[in-house]
Amino acid sequence: MANSKFEYVRNFELPDPLLPNTWVVVRIDGRAFTKMCAKYGFEKPNDRRALDLMNTGAKAVVAELPEITIAYGISDEYSFVFHKSCNLFDRRASKLVSTVVSTFTASYVHAWTHHFPNTPLTSPLPSFDGRAVCYPSVQNLRDYLSWRQADCHINNLYNTTFWALIQLGGLDNKEAEKALAGTLAADKNEILFSRFGINYNNEPEIFRKGSVVFRDYELVEPGGEQQVAAAVDNLAEPVKQSKSQTENDKKRRAKAKILVTHIDIIKDDFWDRRPWILSNKPGRVPKEM
Amino acid sequence: MANSKFEYVRNFELPDPLLPNTWVVVRIDGRAFTKMCAKYGFEKPNDRRALDLMNTGAKAVVAELPEITIAYGISDEYSFVFHKSCNLFDRRASKLVSTVVSTFTASYVHAWTHHFPNTPLTSPLPSFDGRAVCYPSVQNLRDYLSWRQADCHINNLYNTTFWALIQLGGLDNKEAEKALAGTLAADKNEILFSRFGINYNNEPEIFRKGSVVFRDYELVEPGGEQQVAAAVDNLAEPVKQSKSQTENDKKRRAKAKILVTHIDIIKDDFWDRRPWILSNKPGRVPKEM
Amino acid sequence: MANSKFEYVRNFELPDPLLPNTWVVVRIDGRAFTKMCAKYGFEKPNDRRALDLMNTGAKAVVAELPEITIAYGISDEYSFVFHKSCNLFDRRASKLVSTVVSTFTASYVHAWTHHFPNTPLTSPLPSFDGRAVCYPSVQNLRDYLSWRQADCHINNLYNTTFWALIQLGGLDNKEAEKALAGTLAADKNEILFSRFGINYNNEPEIFRKGSVVFRDYELVEPGGEQQVAAAVDNLAEPVKQSKSQTENDKKRRAKAKILVTHIDIIKDDFWDRRPWILSNKPGRVPKEM
Amino acid sequence: MANSKFEYVRNFELPDPLLPNTWVVVRIDGRAFTKMCAKYGFEKPNDRRALDLMNTGAKAVVAELPEITIAYGISDEYSFVFHKSCNLFDRRASKLVSTVVSTFTASYVHAWTHHFPNTPLTSPLPSFDGRAVCYPSVQNLRDYLSWRQADCHINNLYNTTFWALIQLGGLDNKEAEKALAGTLAADKNEILFSRFGINYNNEPEIFRKGSVVFRDYELVEPGGEQQVAAAVDNLAEPVKQSKSQTENDKKRRAKAKILVTHIDIIKDDFWDRRPWILSNKPGRVPKEM
Repeated sequence: MANSKFEYVRNFELPDPLLPNTWVVVRIDGRAFTKMCAKYGFEKPNDRRALDLMNTGAKAVVAELPEITIAYGISDEYSFVFHKSCNLFDRRASKLVSTVVSTFTASYVHAWTHHFPNTPLTSPLPSFDGRAVCYPSVQNLRDYLSWRQADCHINNLYNTTFWALIQLGGLDNKEAEKALAGTLAADKNEILFSRFGINYNNEPEIFRKGSVVFRDYELVEPGGEQQVAAAVDNLAEPVKQSKSQTENDKKRRAKAKILVTHIDIIKDDFWDRRPWILSNKPGRVPKEM
Repeated sequence: MANSKFEYVRNFELPDPLLPNTWVVVRIDGRAFTKMCAKYGFEKPNDRRALDLMNTGAKAVVAELPEITIAYGISDEYSFVFHKSCNLFDRRASKLVSTVVSTFTASYVHAWTHHFPNTPLTSPLPSFDGRAVCYPSVQNLRDYLSWRQADCHINNLYNTTFWALIQLGGLDNKEAEKALAGTLAADKNEILFSRFGINYNNEPEIFRKGSVVFRDYELVEPGGEQQVAAAVDNLAEPVKQSKSQTENDKKRRAKAKILVTHIDIIKDDFWDRRPWILSNKPGRVPKEM
Repeated sequence: MANSKFEYVRNFELPDPLLPNTWVVVRIDGRAFTKMCAKYGFEKPNDRRALDLMNTGAKAVVAELPEITIAYGISDEYSFVFHKSCNLFDRRASKLVSTVVSTFTASYVHAWTHHFPNTPLTSPLPSFDGRAVCYPSVQNLRDYLSWRQADCHINNLYNTTFWALIQLGGLDNKEAEKALAGTLAADKNEILFSRFGINYNNEPEIFRKGSVVFRDYELVEPGGEQQVAAAVDNLAEPVKQSKSQTENDKKRRAKAKILVTHIDIIKDDFWDRRPWILSNKPGRVPKEM
Repeated sequence: MANSKFEYVRNFELPDPLLPNTWVVVRIDGRAFTKMCAKYGFEKPNDRRALDLMNTGAKAVVAELPEITIAYGISDEYSFVFHKSCNLFDRRASKLVSTVVSTFTASYVHAWTHHFPNTPLTSPLPSFDGRAVCYPSVQNLRDYLSWRQADCHINNLYNTTFWALIQLGGLDNKEAEKALAGTLAADKNEILFSRFGINYNNEPEIFRKGSVVFRDYELVEPGGEQQVAAAVDNLAEPVKQSKSQTENDKKRRAKAKILVTHIDIIKDDFWDRRPWILSNKPGRVPKEM
């Protein structure tokens, strides 16, 4: 059975490389998660178990793909940032997207029982879709992440107030919606505080800030490294370094703990103190105490 | 926290629609499955449990996405064929690929325990990558599937002989490789038969033919429908039909059993007797007996 | 001056191949031709000199690129159809589009003086933009060409009536526009005939049908070749033929006259009698008389 | 003749936008210019008339498209750089490429007689193909232009020596090729000087440096503006400015002379003194003297 007469079909697979020297963001989103939330009884406005499960998935992806320099998640979405010098899979979009989505899904399904011990998964199982977007400059990348974190804040303030009106205030969905129509952030804070005694700023940071995932090294004193962004933009192509340096970097990355935290990534401070996220040069691994 | 100043970053997401009126094949492949096989002790040359698990994943994908008209799997790869009239996700490549990969992975990980009850999954978990390829004509599509099935045959004959030489003949890997260098199919059949008493044609069809997955309707008498391929190529755009007809099709599809079988899809007979695969018109659901 | 440290910039040129086995249509359009028409005093509703100049450009493109099987032009646009088996420039979109646009523009500017002997070109010169679109089936391709020819008819009937109302009826632009608002084809025919004694069907075919450009061979008796479209759709990949056959085809193509005609290409008859346009097999060159 | 049943064919035109916030280089190349050179008797190693004609074409393109910030040409190729903030044609690749190629070709063919008064153009006419490439950072862009200018130097030194060996030294092509095999730049300089009394550095700059085209404003004192590149990389999106400012910029651009010069663009000096090329802010128009 000669296969050669069929092999021409390989020519139909068209190349899909992403532009070099750009930050690649692979963002994944839960498919039909509104139904999922209802089916598995996720708590409103936030289900801590579900967020922890998302973070378990994200850590697995970051651990598996060291080319990812930072990840950020809210609700049922997660964004994974590949460093602009990354050449994984020759930057083929479909390989990058499908590998992230598959690794995340595998971990999510596998860790489900750990986070929802009393709720067995049934068909259709949770799944995610994904896409890759390129950002040319550090500023573009940071604006992307700021956009997601600002979205987290806006949505969470709304949802927290909406569900307080329902769960504590006794309104139904339509009434709550109407009560919030046209309100500003200050109005929602006021409703929460005056009607329900809730200080929004005391809500858990995981709900207000989302989740930030990265390899953890020793923080750098602010001041010295503020030029990282400009320096990184200037890097026109992957830095060529010696094999031993590459090996050394690899070891440091492998040693580093993958941290899940819930802090502000819009302001400069986060980036100034963690120059390795933009530079891709692993920092000093903190000593265990 | 006004989000508007960051929203410009949405413009960086570039469109990736696939050409209309072409057959979309999403092919997924196991990542690093050579390691996986060793880690979980898959049997050689074929592990029936692993193939059944792949087929479980494929059935879940076909059940979830009725736009898939046929799927074909061998080893750790699976190809899913979306009908050329399919407009799912506006034919966006990344959505189609990531949804297939994620749905497959979820099912694979979830069903693992069923197929490997004594082998718990550990990190790194199995995962898959994927890609989408468009085929303009029925002939191109059939040649693609023929290419995969011919590959299945070639690889399986080689592997069966290779592992017979090792497991039954006591050779080591290098000796077996050397023994097979330059041999033709007939030579391998001869080695199997004369040295080990194995008639290759009696090997299980799932190993020799791979797995074919589709919705099952009543077979059609050969002869009447041979013009399906040409007729389908002539369809320039999705047929517009009445709502009730669409509803009717949907019900028939939902009722149809998703079959996993192991038969020849290179010859015309398979296609002639199952015109619904190319026409996308659900056939008659067979009566239960 | 070592160049090697800059050469990495070549990696930024991303591939842009068009899907194999699809008909490639490169359509070009005049840039800012409304201004051009005014500047050079083109006659309304149609300027025969300008159309002849467009056709001169189209003939040059078809002569230069034998992979083009048919071209169709109206007003300041032209569509060039590359046969689906064409592999020119490895089907790179930008090469195909830019070569067609450049060859057309060169001929247009060069032949200007011949068609407008008393109107010298001045800056900004006429120019054209272009794009490539793939059509998977013969039916798609014919529907594309039918779309353009139907557009030609609709626009020309409107313009003919519009300018008759102005040039013969003494209306101004706004009055003419108003007079035609909501009219059907029959109404426009009636206005032309009853008010101006113009029988639209006697208008020159170049205005009513546009221009069709192809290599001319002996017509085929209708009846024998009606299966060409289906047969061509079945061709999955470029037919492999002997070198002498290829040479022979090349000679026939070089001998064939490139015809500019103005006939119906929506009905089957045009295609049935000229099977070489879809099959890409040159026909019999007619004997000179 | 209802057109609606054909209109579906419009859906086959796929989008091709280029990534925002990247420098777009459209490079055009002469098609089959080796034949052209022979046909029209271009002088070797450089034909000044042919280069001037290329520069005439380039000036026309830059004049027509104010979004082009700089252009660079050698031999039969020209690169046009659109500022990274440019949104012309919504950054559609085929529109950008085809418009540049067409505008260039029109000017080239139209100005031919001026530069080659005694050599009428005949069919096939000169034509050009083109492609668009995106560069994310200023450094990438400058490296691209440096690559082209370094290529100019390398090719011209080779060609000057090669043709001196033939035209002055009486060698034939093969002998000249052999004489140069393995030689370094210093060797070629030495051959030129010792054998033919040619000091390569005295060769015309247009041959040694190629041609640089840009809008001319008052030079800036070096020192003050060296941060332009970093500042420009930081610009994440098009600067929003008042309408009157935009109008003002437009007027300055229109007033500015388009300069064709032949200078080093590899070193920083060129860029430091002409900050408007990277910043896209028109400078001060020099007073006429």
